[in-house]
Amino acid sequence: MSSNEVSQAAAKAAARAQDAVDSGRLNDAIADLAAFGGRSDGGVSRETLTPLDLQARRHLIERARALGCSVCVDTCGNLFFRRAGRQADLPPVLTGSHIDTQPVGGKLDGAYGVVAGLEVIQALNDAGVATRRPVEVVVWTNEEGSRFGPGAMGSSAFAQSGRLAGYRASRDASGILFGDALDAALADTPDVEHSALGHSVDSCVELHIEQGPVLEGANVPLGVVTGIQSVRWFNVTVSGAAAHAGTTPMEVRRDAMRAAVELAGHLYACGDAVRARGLRMTLGRWRVGPNSINTIPGEVEFTVDARCVDEDVLASFEAALRDAVAGLNAADGFAAQVQNLFARATTRFPADMTDLVERGCARAAANAGEGAPIRVTSGAFHDAMYVADLCPTAMIFVPSRSGISHNAAEYTEPHQLYLGAQALAYVVAELACR
Amino acid sequence: MSSNEVSQAAAKAAARAQDAVDSGRLNDAIADLAAFGGRSDGGVSRETLTPLDLQARRHLIERARALGCSVCVDTCGNLFFRRAGRQADLPPVLTGSHIDTQPVGGKLDGAYGVVAGLEVIQALNDAGVATRRPVEVVVWTNEEGSRFGPGAMGSSAFAQSGRLAGYRASRDASGILFGDALDAALADTPDVEHSALGHSVDSCVELHIEQGPVLEGANVPLGVVTGIQSVRWFNVTVSGAAAHAGTTPMEVRRDAMRAAVELAGHLYACGDAVRARGLRMTLGRWRVGPNSINTIPGEVEFTVDARCVDEDVLASFEAALRDAVAGLNAADGFAAQVQNLFARATTRFPADMTDLVERGCARAAANAGEGAPIRVTSGAFHDAMYVADLCPTAMIFVPSRSGISHNAAEYTEPHQLYLGAQALAYVVAELACR
Repeated sequence: MSSNEVSQAAAKAAARAQDAVDSGRLNDAIADLAAFGGRSDGGVSRETLTPLDLQARRHLIERARALGCSVCVDTCGNLFFRRAGRQADLPPVLTGSHIDTQPVGGKLDGAYGVVAGLEVIQALNDAGVATRRPVEVVVWTNEEGSRFGPGAMGSSAFAQSGRLAGYRASRDASGILFGDALDAALADTPDVEHSALGHSVDSCVELHIEQGPVLEGANVPLGVVTGIQSVRWFNVTVSGAAAHAGTTPMEVRRDAMRAAVELAGHLYACGDAVRARGLRMTLGRWRVGPNSINTIPGEVEFTVDARCVDEDVLASFEAALRDAVAGLNAADGFAAQVQNLFARATTRFPADMTDLVERGCARAAANAGEGAPIRVTSGAFHDAMYVADLCPTAMIFVPSRSGISHNAAEYTEPHQLYLGAQALAYVVAELACR
Repeated sequence: MSSNEVSQAAAKAAARAQDAVDSGRLNDAIADLAAFGGRSDGGVSRETLTPLDLQARRHLIERARALGCSVCVDTCGNLFFRRAGRQADLPPVLTGSHIDTQPVGGKLDGAYGVVAGLEVIQALNDAGVATRRPVEVVVWTNEEGSRFGPGAMGSSAFAQSGRLAGYRASRDASGILFGDALDAALADTPDVEHSALGHSVDSCVELHIEQGPVLEGANVPLGVVTGIQSVRWFNVTVSGAAAHAGTTPMEVRRDAMRAAVELAGHLYACGDAVRARGLRMTLGRWRVGPNSINTIPGEVEFTVDARCVDEDVLASFEAALRDAVAGLNAADGFAAQVQNLFARATTRFPADMTDLVERGCARAAANAGEGAPIRVTSGAFHDAMYVADLCPTAMIFVPSRSGISHNAAEYTEPHQLYLGAQALAYVVAELACR
C-alpha cells in the first residue's frame, strides 16, 4: 500500500475501533476496579504498593489475559498488557495511566486511563482490527507520590532507568522502603514475565480526567491536551527566635511567622501581577515551629508551587521570590533561604499527535451531538510528561465536575467517560495501524 | 505584744531568715532536682506525672521530711511540705511553684521556686525562727500544660475544686487520661497523707524566673511583680476550598491560606496600632489542611494569643479581630470563625504584699551591693494567678538571660538565684511571724 492508502486504512480502522467501544462495559469496569479500596463515601483509598493495590493489579492482569494480552512487569513494577501486532518486532503504541490513589482519592484519577486502555483492546478485538504495531496498556507505578515521594516514579524511571536506584531509598511514613515494597510486589506476581526498564515505544497517548474546571466551564466533553505547563517547586525557610508570647515585648521579637506572613503576602502580590500571563501560585504546605499557642514562632517553612506555560513568567517569578527572601535575610535578626525542590520545563506535545487527538475527539463528539473538543493545557503532571521524553506523546482530557480531584467527590459523567474512551480508541488504533 | 511590736519582731525574724539563706546549698539543690530528666544540653525534660516527675517528687518528699516537714498530697496531686507554726491551727503562709517542665525546658522554670521554698525552710531552721503561722512549700501539679491541657491544673483546681472533674478527662498525645496518670501518682505515695483540695491559706508568695528580658535590660537582680497581665486566647478558622495547585485557575480559587495570610497581616497591623499601650500579640499555632505542596489549602486554623495589662486595649483588639473575621465571612466563598479558647483578666497583687516584697528585695539587693529592685508586670501565667483568687498573693522575679525560657538555654546567674531566695525568705518569714 502507498502511504496514502495506509493512512486511509488506519483512519478506517480507527473509526471501527471507536465505534466498538461499549459504554456500559467501560463504566462497569471502572466500578469493578474501584472496589479495591472503595469507600462508603464513594472515594477510593488505594495508595501505591499497598495490599489493595496489589489485589487491584492482580485483577487487571487476569482481565488483560482474558482479552488475549501477554503481561510483563518491569523492575519499577510498571505492568504492560500487550495485544500483539501483525509485526511483532515493531515497538508498541502505548496507552494507560496509573491505578494508585491519594490517601483519599476518587474512582477516576489514573484508573480511568487504564480501564479505558483495556476497553480499547476489547473494542479492537470486537471490531476485528489487526493492527500493524502491538498495542500496550501500561499501569505506571506510584504516580501519586503520596506514600513514597516523588510522584510519577514508574514513568520517570521508564524514561530514565538511572532514577530507580534513588527511588528505592524513598521511605513511607512508617519507614518502609520503596525498594522493599517494590520487591514484595514483584514477588507477588511470579507468573508474570519480568522485563528491563524502558523498552522501545512507538508513541503514547494517555486519557485522563482534567482535574480542573476548564472543560466543564466550556461545556464540552473532550479536551485536546497540547502540553503540560512548567512547574517549579521551592521550600522557603524563615528563621527568627522562639520566645514566650507573654513575656517578650513586641519590639524585641524576631517572630518568624510574622516575617513569613509578610513574605507570603508579597509573593501573592507578585503572582497577581503576572496572573494574566498564566502564572498559578500556591503556598500549600506549612510547618511552624514550635507551633504552640503561647510561643512566638521561631521557624516557619512553606512550599511554593509555581506553574506557567510561559517559562519566562516562571523565571521572573522565581527571581522575585529570591529577591524577597534575600531582603528578609538582610533584615535584622532573621535568616531566610530558598531551596529548589523540583523543576520541570513545559512539555509540548507534537502537532501531528494533537491533530490526531483532535480528529478522534471531534468524531466521537460529533457522533454524540456534543460540542467540538477544545485545546487545553494540563495544569497537573501526568505520566505522559516523562514518556514525552521518549516518543511522540499526546493526552486526552474529559471534564471533572467542579474541577474536583484528589477527593472522594471526584466525578465525570458516564457519557463523557464513554466519549473519552472512544477518542482514545480512535487514536490508538490509527497509531497502531500506521 | 502590740501590733507595732509584732511588726518589728516579724521584720527582725525576716532579716534573720534572709541572712541564713545559703547560696551554695541552694544552687546544689537546684542541680540535684535537675538531675531528674536532665539532658546533655543542660536542659530538663520532665513533663508532668511521668516516671521522672514521680521520682523528682519522691526526692523532694524525702528532702522535706529531712527538714522536719510533714507532707501531704491533695486530690489533684499537689504536694505540700509543712513546717509547723507556733499556732498550729492558723492557715499557713504558702510558697513554692511547680517542677514539671515543657517537653524540653530548663532547670529553673518552676523548679527554682520549689527548691528556694525548701531553702527558706532550712534557713528558718538554721536561724532558729519559730514562726507564728505554719509555712508550706507547695509543688503544683501540671503547670506547663504541655502533656495535658490546660496548664496550671493543680493551682486552678486548688482555687476551685470543681475544675478537677473536667481536668481528669484530659488526654495526653498517647491517649492517657490525666485522671489515670493522677491516680497512679497518688498510689505511688502511699506513705503520704492525703488531703482535700483547697485548704485554707493565709497568704502566698511565688518566686520565679522572669522568662522575659526586662530585668536583664534594667540590670537589676530582683523584680517586684505587681500583677499578671490579662490574656485572651482565640482560635481562628478560615475555610475555603482545597483544589489542585496545577489545574485550578487563580480566578476561581478559594485559597484558605491566602485569606489567612491577609487576615494575619491585618491583625499584626491592628496590634502595632496599640503596641505603645502594651498589647502583645502572637499567632503561634497553625494547622493547614490538607498541607500538601500541590494542593491549594482548603482550611487554615491559627491561634491568637493577645495580652495586655490594660483590659480596654485587649477588648478593642478583640473587637477588631471579630470585625476582620466577619469581613472575611462575608467575602465570596469563604467561611471564617473565631472561637474563644481562654480568657483571664489582669491579676493585681495587693499593695501591702508588693510593698513587703519590695522591702525583702531591697534589703537583699542592698546587702549585695546590687541595684534596687524594680516593679514589673508578669507577661506569663503562674500558679500565683489562681492562688490570688484565694488569699493575698505576691511574686518575686529574678532575671532570665536574654529572656530565654522553655528552652535548654534558660539561665539565671547563681548569685541572682541566691538573692531571689533571700528575698523570698524575708517575705515568707515576715508573713508567718505576723
